Amino acid sequence: MFTNSRTVRIEWGDCDPAGIIFYPRYFEIFDASTAALFERALGMTKFEQLRHFDFAGYPLVRTRAKFIRPTRFGDDVTVESSIAFGRSSFEVAHKLSLKGVTCVEGAETRAWVVRDPATGAIKARPVPDEVRVKFAS
Amino acid sequence: MFTNSRTVRIEWGDCDPAGIIFYPRYFEIFDASTAALFERALGMTKFEQLRHFDFAGYPLVRTRAKFIRPTRFGDDVTVESSIAFGRSSFEVAHKLSLKGVTCVEGAETRAWVVRDPATGAIKARPVPDEVRVKFAS
Amino acid sequence: MFTNSRTVRIEWGDCDPAGIIFYPRYFEIFDASTAALFERALGMTKFEQLRHFDFAGYPLVRTRAKFIRPTRFGDDVTVESSIAFGRSSFEVAHKLSLKGVTCVEGAETRAWVVRDPATGAIKARPVPDEVRVKFAS
Amino acid sequence: MFTNSRTVRIEWGDCDPAGIIFYPRYFEIFDASTAALFERALGMTKFEQLRHFDFAGYPLVRTRAKFIRPTRFGDDVTVESSIAFGRSSFEVAHKLSLKGVTCVEGAETRAWVVRDPATGAIKARPVPDEVRVKFAS
Repeated sequence: MFTNSRTVRIEWGDCDPAGIIFYPRYFEIFDASTAALFERALGMTKFEQLRHFDFAGYPLVRTRAKFIRPTRFGDDVTVESSIAFGRSSFEVAHKLSLKGVTCVEGAETRAWVVRDPATGAIKARPVPDEVRVKFAS
Repeated sequence: MFTNSRTVRIEWGDCDPAGIIFYPRYFEIFDASTAALFERALGMTKFEQLRHFDFAGYPLVRTRAKFIRPTRFGDDVTVESSIAFGRSSFEVAHKLSLKGVTCVEGAETRAWVVRDPATGAIKARPVPDEVRVKFAS
Repeated sequence: MFTNSRTVRIEWGDCDPAGIIFYPRYFEIFDASTAALFERALGMTKFEQLRHFDFAGYPLVRTRAKFIRPTRFGDDVTVESSIAFGRSSFEVAHKLSLKGVTCVEGAETRAWVVRDPATGAIKARPVPDEVRVKFAS
Repeated sequence: MFTNSRTVRIEWGDCDPAGIIFYPRYFEIFDASTAALFERALGMTKFEQLRHFDFAGYPLVRTRAKFIRPTRFGDDVTVESSIAFGRSSFEVAHKLSLKGVTCVEGAETRAWVVRDPATGAIKARPVPDEVRVKFAS
């Protein structure tokens, strides 16, 4: 399974009056971690992907997260992300840890979508083989 | 079951380059919706609650969301939130809809916590009867 | 001078570990306040404006703010916004107050821009008369 | 003059429907850049500073920014921050650039504050010599 790991600094502005991270910030971190996973596998930024592939991104269908230990400003956390492909959707699992201790576990289901040129609506399409091949290598 | 309903405007700055809401913003909306639910039941803002009760808030233990239809800037969405209490935790369900059509369903498990004065660590405590009574009325 | 006033609730998630609002949130509030000003004058949301006018929005050229008193979660602040037009740019002044006491003063210079279809670059264009007339009435 | 430089990735979620960064995100970047400047000079994170010094942080008094060129998701921008001290306040200048081209210039005035134990109000205090010395070295 293709995985990627990155380090993220939790900032003052990510934290709430309890002094710990405001949890929606974890989803911002997870979204950027999924982008980093694709960038590493495909060798292109998301900006470049949107030009290279005839598609409209990979929006979320579903997500869930479990908050085990709080993190706070000044913490440098590690996010390990792994991916598993379905036909036109895929699952990304994120494990966010601090000094080896898991703090948050997140899971996303995303769809590979194209935009209908006539209506502007988006619809799911099979993940291209080019993408699967690069994640498999 | 105690419920609350509020209207939220999706703003330009909540949306991403696909022109639709960036999904972590939904969790910001849900967090504020839980605060509004407590404010309505208890007749105090969260700021006042933290002075009135000897506690440290109600952080998330777990959350999940299902994204059914996208929303975009200019949309005035309705968030209906309902709550069910356990002993020291509670569940909040959020249904976000646009013109009567459900766009997102969210669910949170939160714990009622106090801060240990010696260590600074937080630990779950039974939800006070005063809180339960007000939500039941 | 055309003005608009709106009330904004400062949320828990807008505040930092000092218990007061994290100042970049003021700029999010100001951006939404400028959008509300245009919506009130033109009778269209920003989404509708982008379809109605052949333009690419009104990005910031410059901004400044003075932070006089802090605000905190649970505060319902008032934002009064007024506008003055130049040829292809305009100035918006925001005064954010709590119970009649000014907390923040902000000022923005924005440009009315169109996107060059060939290069994708944006360039300033005169504000349409249709817009000026509606703000003048 | 003490300066610090850091690289920041502009993320998909930092950008708006125009495909460029939503400008309040620049202020989040600048706030984190000021924190990084202090961390580098003092050898402590902001979390550690708040324990080490008897103070309540360095909130903003005033800020201004000039937006010269837009940035977009996938851009790795450089932020150069420099500081100049007054008695109980200081100025931080930030220059954000992409591939050597300046995109945004920001300037902040911040105050070194303590919290009055009786009233909870914050008031400005002279920047400690310990801080000045470390920035001077």
